[in-house]
Amino acid sequence: MPEVKTATKYAPSLDGLPCFSADVPKFLSGEDTPRNWLESCIETISAREKDVRAFTHLDVDGARKAADASSRRYKDGRPLSPLDGMPVAFKDVFDMAGTNTGHGSPLFADNHTKWDAASVWHMRQGGAVMLGKTVTTEFAFSTPGPTRNAWDLERTPGGSSSGSGAAVGAGMVPVATGTQVRGSVVRPAAFNGAYALKPSQGAINTLGGFPSAPSINHLGIIAGSLSDMWITAYWMSRNVGGDPGHPSLVGEPGLPAARKPTRIARLDTAGWAETPDDVRAIFNDFVDRMASRGVEIVGRGDDPELEALERDLIETRSVIDLILTYEGRWPLMMYAQAAPDLVGERIADRARAGAECSPDDYARALEWADGFRARHMALSAKYDAFVTLNQIAAAPKGIPVGNVVYGEGATLLRAPALNLPLLAHEDMPLGVQLIGYYRRDCDLTALGHWMVDATFRAEN
Amino acid sequence: MPEVKTATKYAPSLDGLPCFSADVPKFLSGEDTPRNWLESCIETISAREKDVRAFTHLDVDGARKAADASSRRYKDGRPLSPLDGMPVAFKDVFDMAGTNTGHGSPLFADNHTKWDAASVWHMRQGGAVMLGKTVTTEFAFSTPGPTRNAWDLERTPGGSSSGSGAAVGAGMVPVATGTQVRGSVVRPAAFNGAYALKPSQGAINTLGGFPSAPSINHLGIIAGSLSDMWITAYWMSRNVGGDPGHPSLVGEPGLPAARKPTRIARLDTAGWAETPDDVRAIFNDFVDRMASRGVEIVGRGDDPELEALERDLIETRSVIDLILTYEGRWPLMMYAQAAPDLVGERIADRARAGAECSPDDYARALEWADGFRARHMALSAKYDAFVTLNQIAAAPKGIPVGNVVYGEGATLLRAPALNLPLLAHEDMPLGVQLIGYYRRDCDLTALGHWMVDATFRAEN
Repeated sequence: MPEVKTATKYAPSLDGLPCFSADVPKFLSGEDTPRNWLESCIETISAREKDVRAFTHLDVDGARKAADASSRRYKDGRPLSPLDGMPVAFKDVFDMAGTNTGHGSPLFADNHTKWDAASVWHMRQGGAVMLGKTVTTEFAFSTPGPTRNAWDLERTPGGSSSGSGAAVGAGMVPVATGTQVRGSVVRPAAFNGAYALKPSQGAINTLGGFPSAPSINHLGIIAGSLSDMWITAYWMSRNVGGDPGHPSLVGEPGLPAARKPTRIARLDTAGWAETPDDVRAIFNDFVDRMASRGVEIVGRGDDPELEALERDLIETRSVIDLILTYEGRWPLMMYAQAAPDLVGERIADRARAGAECSPDDYARALEWADGFRARHMALSAKYDAFVTLNQIAAAPKGIPVGNVVYGEGATLLRAPALNLPLLAHEDMPLGVQLIGYYRRDCDLTALGHWMVDATFRAEN
Repeated sequence: MPEVKTATKYAPSLDGLPCFSADVPKFLSGEDTPRNWLESCIETISAREKDVRAFTHLDVDGARKAADASSRRYKDGRPLSPLDGMPVAFKDVFDMAGTNTGHGSPLFADNHTKWDAASVWHMRQGGAVMLGKTVTTEFAFSTPGPTRNAWDLERTPGGSSSGSGAAVGAGMVPVATGTQVRGSVVRPAAFNGAYALKPSQGAINTLGGFPSAPSINHLGIIAGSLSDMWITAYWMSRNVGGDPGHPSLVGEPGLPAARKPTRIARLDTAGWAETPDDVRAIFNDFVDRMASRGVEIVGRGDDPELEALERDLIETRSVIDLILTYEGRWPLMMYAQAAPDLVGERIADRARAGAECSPDDYARALEWADGFRARHMALSAKYDAFVTLNQIAAAPKGIPVGNVVYGEGATLLRAPALNLPLLAHEDMPLGVQLIGYYRRDCDLTALGHWMVDATFRAEN
């Protein structure tokens, strides 16, 4: 699987990330077991977690028991699903029976839960091994937790799915879940050199999780390989189900074959203006390489409809901000009122802004978003996908969530977005973002697969 | 206000139901206070609750404190909202800080909550007086609680919002919230002689409540008067906000003036086939009275598009059943697996059915529902509204939820639906259902207002 080689290229200190699905044939043949596989994760955790601090909760004993049970099922030739035996970590905004759901907030330091979130429960039924829960920023907003970047402890892992990005980037777990409103899945994946799919909105059920702007919140998958990413996302969408009112993804259960795009739109988004010249040059070079391999690249200057979409993308910030603030009024205003000393300044700001929001402004924002989505979908006859960055530069020093600018567009569009860790900046991973069309996640992944192959074939 | 007279007509043993909004001018003038008003509710509770058993939790002391605070605000000329001082009860599927959220299940007998649901918290901010929580059937499905019909203790209050229907019908509280998938707001209102609005889907935020089929669940208002019903629903939609992704209602904060409809479609729905002849005659007489007052009444035989809608309404049952089962897989499968002895047989059945559901069947159900909604909306140029029953007959003996057949159509259509307690059968209330168009709740209420007036002017 070519995609598992990726992470090694730009960070010689890190080994290639593990790919669970690549080893399933060995479990079936008896050559290896999920328990052995888990032990290698535990070894990595032993080596890295004290520095990276990705987990809020680790259940090594429970995971070993679950992995043993899975090993027995493979031995009996009866694995429960393609995820049977796969170690997985959940962002600590989701309930996991017997653990605390902390939401990154001292207000929830003692929030022991008896029940699983929808995604956790259904993955358990499929035999996945619950390894633990990962650090989130406060209520999945911006106040960071303790997690450090897997590639450089002085840098941010990004947020809000900080722990999931870092845990996967450090090779501690092959797959972790995140949630995204402003790029909180694709950005920490990009900062930590992992793959990610923020699927079409609603494709994976978020119930039992913190309600961050539910109409534009997405449960996404961060993984060490494109294969694990897709297999997990597809299985979850089909078996956990989507958010209520949303259909599950359609496509193939396994990683779709690489498909070369005919024509790709290159998007600036609001991010380009904030992107330094050296990063622009790296991205330009990447786009040129795709062109040199026969993909037609079209930019805003070449197509008035694309130019119109770019103008929409500039509007995105204020629209997404309004939706986020309005939908967050409850519970954030309630928390800020009940325990002003226990909420961070950014949450207090959100609560204050929420008190000022009008339902009519919110209705207009929803209406604008509908038009934006329609204008984007109208481009599906012209472009296979859209390519842009996931970050303005390498993960910055410190532990901020990172600049959210590149993450907003695909979220508001409800469109699937991939992080492909194909580039480097300052010897750190730099992610390419590939954005597709609503509910065409499988098609997008096939294109992403081709880009991964093409990148390596071009360079190797 | 003519509508407050209604409930007295068919049950001489019950007094007319109290209307809070009618007395707000007295609070403003100093002639009366919310505290006095609350005391009359408490008197009724003292007299009736031991038999009716509508509440799972009553906080008389807390309510008195809140009512005193409200009385002071009126005295200072600064009420917080039109609901300031209004006693209200919430269906026990919603979190209310400091109480247990029981969901009608022994599994949640010890589920003490620290936080308010969105609707509870925002109503508190508006000064509403939290009087208590009301009995729900198990997880808002069919296994009933202990509540009895307010008009006849041997009969059912209906469900799933059993306690809210009975509490309002007995005059213990002017307004209570319910939730509806299969008519669980309009039916208990009808059985107990109360008004109700099941608003357009998403019009009032349901977060912090049990996730019963969230894509077709509705938070609705049961009230002793049309005025309290509308004022509460509108204020909540504008101030609690809608479900994420749904705009708030538009219209007028106060009860809209009565508006005579030009043309009303009379619907059979799947309910007519199950409705006995004597009830059919009562409804036919009602429709004839509307016609005699100059409203054009059109039935399925008069319009092929209406006939097509009637055929859709027959399909509704299987579609709603599939959506309900699929969206209920989590958490019901989880509960049934974790505690088989603590879930009722109907919940166990739902869990078993859920395990068999396919995401593709669910996707087809969603698609069908979209088409159904479009066919219904296309009739808006022809018909002001649709009239049918809310129940096949008077509330039956025992405590079942009641026949759900008349409640399903408006739910799946996402359209607003009113219960108007204008008819009687077996000396019990019999409700007229008026169904409108998505997001035109205010228009529908104006038509309902006219029907209430017309009914009384015709008879008095």
